[in-house]
Amino acid sequence: MAAVPSSELDAFYADVDRADLRPLWTQTGLLPASPPIADVPYVWRWSRVRELAARAGRLVTVDRGGDRRVLALANPGLGGEPYATRTLWAAVQYLGPGEFAPAHRHTPAAIRFVLEGHGVWTLVDRDPVPMAPGDLVLTPSWCWHEHHSSGDGPMLWFDGLDLPMARALDAVFFEPGPSSTVDRLVDPVSASEVAHGRAGLADDERPWRRTHSPLLAYRWSDTDAYLRDAVGRSDSGHAAVRFTDPSTGRDAVPTMRCTAHRALPGVRCPSRRRAGSSVWVTYEGAAYAVVDGVRFELGRNDMLAVPSWAAFDVEAIEPTTFFTISDAPVLEALGLARNEVLPAHQDVTSDETPVAATGSV
Amino acid sequence: MAAVPSSELDAFYADVDRADLRPLWTQTGLLPASPPIADVPYVWRWSRVRELAARAGRLVTVDRGGDRRVLALANPGLGGEPYATRTLWAAVQYLGPGEFAPAHRHTPAAIRFVLEGHGVWTLVDRDPVPMAPGDLVLTPSWCWHEHHSSGDGPMLWFDGLDLPMARALDAVFFEPGPSSTVDRLVDPVSASEVAHGRAGLADDERPWRRTHSPLLAYRWSDTDAYLRDAVGRSDSGHAAVRFTDPSTGRDAVPTMRCTAHRALPGVRCPSRRRAGSSVWVTYEGAAYAVVDGVRFELGRNDMLAVPSWAAFDVEAIEPTTFFTISDAPVLEALGLARNEVLPAHQDVTSDETPVAATGSV
Amino acid sequence: MAAVPSSELDAFYADVDRADLRPLWTQTGLLPASPPIADVPYVWRWSRVRELAARAGRLVTVDRGGDRRVLALANPGLGGEPYATRTLWAAVQYLGPGEFAPAHRHTPAAIRFVLEGHGVWTLVDRDPVPMAPGDLVLTPSWCWHEHHSSGDGPMLWFDGLDLPMARALDAVFFEPGPSSTVDRLVDPVSASEVAHGRAGLADDERPWRRTHSPLLAYRWSDTDAYLRDAVGRSDSGHAAVRFTDPSTGRDAVPTMRCTAHRALPGVRCPSRRRAGSSVWVTYEGAAYAVVDGVRFELGRNDMLAVPSWAAFDVEAIEPTTFFTISDAPVLEALGLARNEVLPAHQDVTSDETPVAATGSV
Amino acid sequence: MAAVPSSELDAFYADVDRADLRPLWTQTGLLPASPPIADVPYVWRWSRVRELAARAGRLVTVDRGGDRRVLALANPGLGGEPYATRTLWAAVQYLGPGEFAPAHRHTPAAIRFVLEGHGVWTLVDRDPVPMAPGDLVLTPSWCWHEHHSSGDGPMLWFDGLDLPMARALDAVFFEPGPSSTVDRLVDPVSASEVAHGRAGLADDERPWRRTHSPLLAYRWSDTDAYLRDAVGRSDSGHAAVRFTDPSTGRDAVPTMRCTAHRALPGVRCPSRRRAGSSVWVTYEGAAYAVVDGVRFELGRNDMLAVPSWAAFDVEAIEPTTFFTISDAPVLEALGLARNEVLPAHQDVTSDETPVAATGSV
Repeated sequence: MAAVPSSELDAFYADVDRADLRPLWTQTGLLPASPPIADVPYVWRWSRVRELAARAGRLVTVDRGGDRRVLALANPGLGGEPYATRTLWAAVQYLGPGEFAPAHRHTPAAIRFVLEGHGVWTLVDRDPVPMAPGDLVLTPSWCWHEHHSSGDGPMLWFDGLDLPMARALDAVFFEPGPSSTVDRLVDPVSASEVAHGRAGLADDERPWRRTHSPLLAYRWSDTDAYLRDAVGRSDSGHAAVRFTDPSTGRDAVPTMRCTAHRALPGVRCPSRRRAGSSVWVTYEGAAYAVVDGVRFELGRNDMLAVPSWAAFDVEAIEPTTFFTISDAPVLEALGLARNEVLPAHQDVTSDETPVAATGSV
Repeated sequence: MAAVPSSELDAFYADVDRADLRPLWTQTGLLPASPPIADVPYVWRWSRVRELAARAGRLVTVDRGGDRRVLALANPGLGGEPYATRTLWAAVQYLGPGEFAPAHRHTPAAIRFVLEGHGVWTLVDRDPVPMAPGDLVLTPSWCWHEHHSSGDGPMLWFDGLDLPMARALDAVFFEPGPSSTVDRLVDPVSASEVAHGRAGLADDERPWRRTHSPLLAYRWSDTDAYLRDAVGRSDSGHAAVRFTDPSTGRDAVPTMRCTAHRALPGVRCPSRRRAGSSVWVTYEGAAYAVVDGVRFELGRNDMLAVPSWAAFDVEAIEPTTFFTISDAPVLEALGLARNEVLPAHQDVTSDETPVAATGSV
Repeated sequence: MAAVPSSELDAFYADVDRADLRPLWTQTGLLPASPPIADVPYVWRWSRVRELAARAGRLVTVDRGGDRRVLALANPGLGGEPYATRTLWAAVQYLGPGEFAPAHRHTPAAIRFVLEGHGVWTLVDRDPVPMAPGDLVLTPSWCWHEHHSSGDGPMLWFDGLDLPMARALDAVFFEPGPSSTVDRLVDPVSASEVAHGRAGLADDERPWRRTHSPLLAYRWSDTDAYLRDAVGRSDSGHAAVRFTDPSTGRDAVPTMRCTAHRALPGVRCPSRRRAGSSVWVTYEGAAYAVVDGVRFELGRNDMLAVPSWAAFDVEAIEPTTFFTISDAPVLEALGLARNEVLPAHQDVTSDETPVAATGSV
Repeated sequence: MAAVPSSELDAFYADVDRADLRPLWTQTGLLPASPPIADVPYVWRWSRVRELAARAGRLVTVDRGGDRRVLALANPGLGGEPYATRTLWAAVQYLGPGEFAPAHRHTPAAIRFVLEGHGVWTLVDRDPVPMAPGDLVLTPSWCWHEHHSSGDGPMLWFDGLDLPMARALDAVFFEPGPSSTVDRLVDPVSASEVAHGRAGLADDERPWRRTHSPLLAYRWSDTDAYLRDAVGRSDSGHAAVRFTDPSTGRDAVPTMRCTAHRALPGVRCPSRRRAGSSVWVTYEGAAYAVVDGVRFELGRNDMLAVPSWAAFDVEAIEPTTFFTISDAPVLEALGLARNEVLPAHQDVTSDETPVAATGSV
C-alpha cells in the first residue's frame, strides 16, 4: 500500500470522529494482555475508621444522612469514586443507641457483617433479623430493609454491595419505604432462620424459588464452629467457608461471594491471583497480607482491598479470621473466571507505608 | 441533636476525606429511583458508516490497524468512549479482498453479523467458519480467531462485544496468536455445524461442556426461514428468534443475547422497556423506531442504540428484519432483570434531527 | 372386512406366539385408565413387629442373618414379595447390645430412621455416624456401611430402600466388605455433619459433586424443632419438612423422598392422591388415617403402606409426628408425577379389621 | 449363642409370616453381586415379524386391535410378558393403506422409528407429524396421538415404550380420545419442526418448559447426514448420535435414550456392558453382534434385545446403521448408571441357534 498523505488521513479521522465512530486501531489499551487495574491494594485501619464513624454518630443524624450513616471505603486508585474496588462497594455503617434507619429497597444487593455492638435488628421484607458481632445478614436485591437499634451502645457493621456492577449495568433502581411505625419487639431469630436455618430441612410443600438465599442470617456461632472444626481437621492450618443459599448450594446472593477464612500462625500459602476483586475484613487476630509484593500488617477489623489479578497471600501472626466479599459468582456466571496459583509465595518488595500519612491529622 | 458548628463539620469532612472514606450522605445520585442513563438513543446511518469503512479500507492496512480494521460506534452520551451503549461494544469491521486479520484471542466474547460481501471465513480454534450475509458467527471468550478473505470484494460485518462489561469487571485478557500460515482451502461448513448444526442431534459419547455454544455459525437461510414461518403463523405480524446454545438452550454466549426480529408493516406494538441496553441492526426493510418519545427512521443496515430503561417500540414501513444484541443474559444471571410493558405505545414527541448534522461534512 | 375363519385366526395366533411376539390387542389391562394397584393399604403394628424383632434378636445371630437382622414388611397384595409397596422396601432392623453388622455396599440406597435404643453408630464410607431415636441416617447408593452397637440395650430402626425400583431396572449390585476390625471410639457427630451440618455453610474450595446428600445424619432435635416452629406459625395445624441435600436443595437421595409431618388434633385435611407409593411411620402420637375409604388407627411406631393413587388423609387424635418415605423424586425426574387434591376428605366406608387376626397367635 | 431348638425357630418363622413380615436372611438373592438377569439376548428376525404383521393387517382390523395393530417383542426369558427387555417395550406396528388408529394418550412415553412405507402421519397434540422411513417420531408422556394413513401401501414402524418402567412405578394412566373426524390435509413438516427444528433457533419470548423435547420428529435425512459426516471424520470407523431435546440438550424423553449408530466393516470394538437394557434395530446393512459370548448375525430391520450388564459388541459386515433405545437416562437420573469397557472384545463361545426353530412353522 502506497504511503497515504497525512492530510488525507487527517481528513479521514476528522470525518470518523464527526460520525460518532472510533477507529479500533487508535484505541490503545482496549484489549491489554491482562486487565489494566486502576484500583490499588489498600488498607483502611479500623482505629481511624471507627473514630470517624463515632464522630459521624455525634455530628450527623441518620435523617441528615440520606437514610444511612455510612462511610464508604474509597480506593485511592479510583479517582475519588466511593468504591473499595472496581466492582465492590464496601463501607462501615454506624447506628447509635435507639436510632433507626428508615425503610427502603434497591436493586443492588447488600450484605452486612457485624463488627461490634448489640441490640440491633434489620427488618427485611417484614422479617426481623437480629444482629450481633460476627453475624452475616443479607438484604438481597429489591428487598425492603430498615435498621433498628434497641441497644444502649452503638453498633458498627461492614456493608458490602455490588453497587459498582449494578451501576455498570445501568440497573440501579431505588424506592423509599413508608415511614410507618414498626413494632420493636423482636424474636431472637428471624423467620428465615426458622424456615431455612437447619441444614437439609426444607418445607415439603412450598419450595423456595428466588435467585437469592432464603436464609437471611448466618450466625457467628455457626461460622466460628465451622472454621474451628475445619482448621482442626485440616493439615494446612487454613480453612475457608462459603456462605451459600441452602436451597440451591449457590452463593447467597448471585452477585457477591461471601466467605470466612481462618489461618493459624506459621503458615504462608502459595500466592494466588484471580480475575475479579475482593475485600478482606480482619475480624479476629493479626496477620500479614502480601499483595503484588507489598506487605500489609492487618489488625482487628482492618479492611484490605485486593484488586483484580493481584498476587495475594496471607500469613497469620496469631490465629486470624477474615470475612471477605468478592465478585467471583459474577465472573463464573459470565464465563470470565480465571484463577492462578503462583509457583510459590511471592517476594515482599516493600512494606505498606502510606498508612501513617493517612492516619495523621 | 443540637446544631453542629460548621467548623466542626468541616474538620470532620476533611478528616474523612484524608482517610480515603466518603460519606454516603454527601453522595447524591448513588441510588437513584431509576438508573441514571448517560448513553442516548442514537442511530448510525449505514450510508455514512459504509463510506468511512471503505475509506479506511483504502487508507489503513489491517496491520496498521491493531490487527483489525474496525470502526466502533461511539455513543454521543458516553463522553468519547468507543461504546455503543453502556454495556455493549458495537462496530463495523471491513475486510478487503484477499486480506486477512491475524490470530488473537481475548476474554471478551464477540459475535459477528455479516452485512455484505462474500468469500470470507473466520478460523475459530482451528475450525474454519465461512461467512455470508445474514450469518451470525461466534468467536466466544478466549477462543482463537482470525479472519481471511478469499473473495474479490470487501466484506463488512457488524461486531458485537461484551467489552464494556468485561472491562467493568477488570477481566479483560488478550493474547496475540502465532503468525503462521494457514491453509486457505475451506469447507463450506464449519466442523461445529457438522457436529451441532442439526437440531436435536448430538454426539452420544462426548457431550459438550463449555459455557458457550458449540455451534459457531447460525446461517441466514435458517434464520430467514424461521422468521418467515413464525410471522406466517403469528397473529401479531411480528416474530423474534433467539440464537441459543443447542447443547443447553441457553444464550449462545453467556454475556450477550442475540436475536432477530421480523415485523410486517402496519403494526405498532405497545412500548416496552427493560433494564439493560441493546443495539438494533436493520438488516432488511425500513421502519420507525420510537425511543423515549423520539422517532427514528431506520433503513437497511442502520444501527440503533437503545439505552437501559428507555421506552422502545418499532413500526415497520415495509417488511423489516432486525438483528439485535443485548446484555439480557447478564442481568438475568445476576437477578437484575426487569421488564415493563407500557400501557400503550408511547407518544412521539419529536423526530430525530441530529442525523443530518452528523452526516454532513 | 369379511369375517375371518377362526381356524385362520388360530393359526395366526399360534405363529405369533412361536415367533416370541404378543399381539397388543389381546393384552388386556396393559394401558388401564389408572394404574392397576396390587399392593393394598396396610398397617404393621409396632407391638407385633417389636415382639418378633426381639425374638429374632434371641434366636438369630447377625452372622446367620445374611449380614443383617431385618424383618421386611411384606404387603399382602404383593404375593409374598418382601416389599411394603410396589416401589419401596421397608423393614425393621434390630441390633442387640454389643453386636455389629459387617460392612457391605449395594446400589440400592437405604435410609434409616431410628425408633428406639441408644449407643449405635453406622460407619458410612469411613465416617462414623451416631444414631439416636428420631434421627434419619443415610447410606446412599454404593457407599460402604456397617452398624455397630456399643450400647447396653437393643436398637431398632426403620429401614427404607429403593430396592424394588433398583430391581425393576436390573441395576442391583452388591459387594461384601472386608472383615477388618474397626476402632470403636466414635465422635459424637459425623464428619459429614461437621462439613455440611450447618445451614448455608460449605467448603469454599472443594464443592460436593455427587448425586446424593453430603450430609449423612438429620438429627431429631432439628427435625422436632423445625416441626414445632412450623406448626406454631401455621394456620392449618399441620406442617411437613423435607429432608434435602444441602448442597443442591434436592432430595437427600435421588430415589426416595424422606419427610416428617406433624399434625395437631382436630384437623382433617382434604384427601389427596398421587402417582407413586409411600410408607408412613407414626413416630409420635396417635391418629386415624383413611386410605381409599378404609380407616386405620395408628399408634406409636405403627407403619402404614399407602399404594399409588390411593386417596389418603390423616386426622390426629393427639399431636402426632410421622416419618415417611416415598418414590416421589423418581416420578418427578421421569415426568410421571401426578397429584390430585380431592374435593373434600373422603368418606369412611369401613374400619380396618384384619389387625386382630394378624396379631393373634 | 446356644443352639436354638428347631421347633422354636419354626414357631418364630410361622409367626413372622403371619405378621406379613419376611426375614431378610431367608431371602436369598435379594442383593446379588450383580443383577440377576431374566431376559436373554435375543433376535427377532424381520422376515418373520414382517410376514406376521402383514397377516395381522389382513386378519385384524385396527378397531378390533385395541386401538392399535401392534406385535410386541416378548423376550423368552420374561415368562411370557410382552416386553423386549426388563425395562423396555418394543414392538412393530402395522398401519394399512387408508387406515387410522384413533386418538388416545397415556403416561408411558412412546417413540416411533419408521421401518418402511409412506403416506402416514401422526397427530400429536393437534400437530400433524409426517412419517417416512428412518424418521424418529415422539409421542411423549400424556400427549394425545393418533396415526393416519393416506398412502397406498402399508407402513411398518418400530415402537419403543417405557411401559415396563411406568408399570413398575404404578404410574400408568390412559385416556381414550374423542372419535372426531380429523382434517387429512397435512403440512409436509410438523409445527414442532417449524418452531424447534433449526439448530440453535428458539422463540425469543416463549421458552419451552416441559420435561420432553419440543421437537417431535427427527428426520432420516438429518440423521443419515450426521452419521455420514461423523464416520467420515472419525478414526474408529464408528459414530453414534443421540436424539436430544434441543431446548435443554437432555434426552428427547426423560425415560428413554434414543441413538443411532453407524459402523463400517472390519472394525470390532472392545466389548462394553452397562447397567440397564437396550434394543437395537438394524436399520441398514448387516453385522454381527456378540452378547455374552453368543454371536448373532443381524440383517435389515432385525431387532436385538441386550439385557442389563451383558457384554456387548458389534462388528459390521457391510456399512451398517442401528437405531437403539435404552433406559440410560433413567439410571443416570437415579444415580444408578454403571458402565464398563472390557479389556478387549469378548470371545465368541457360540452362535445363536434358536433362530431357525423360531422361524420354522
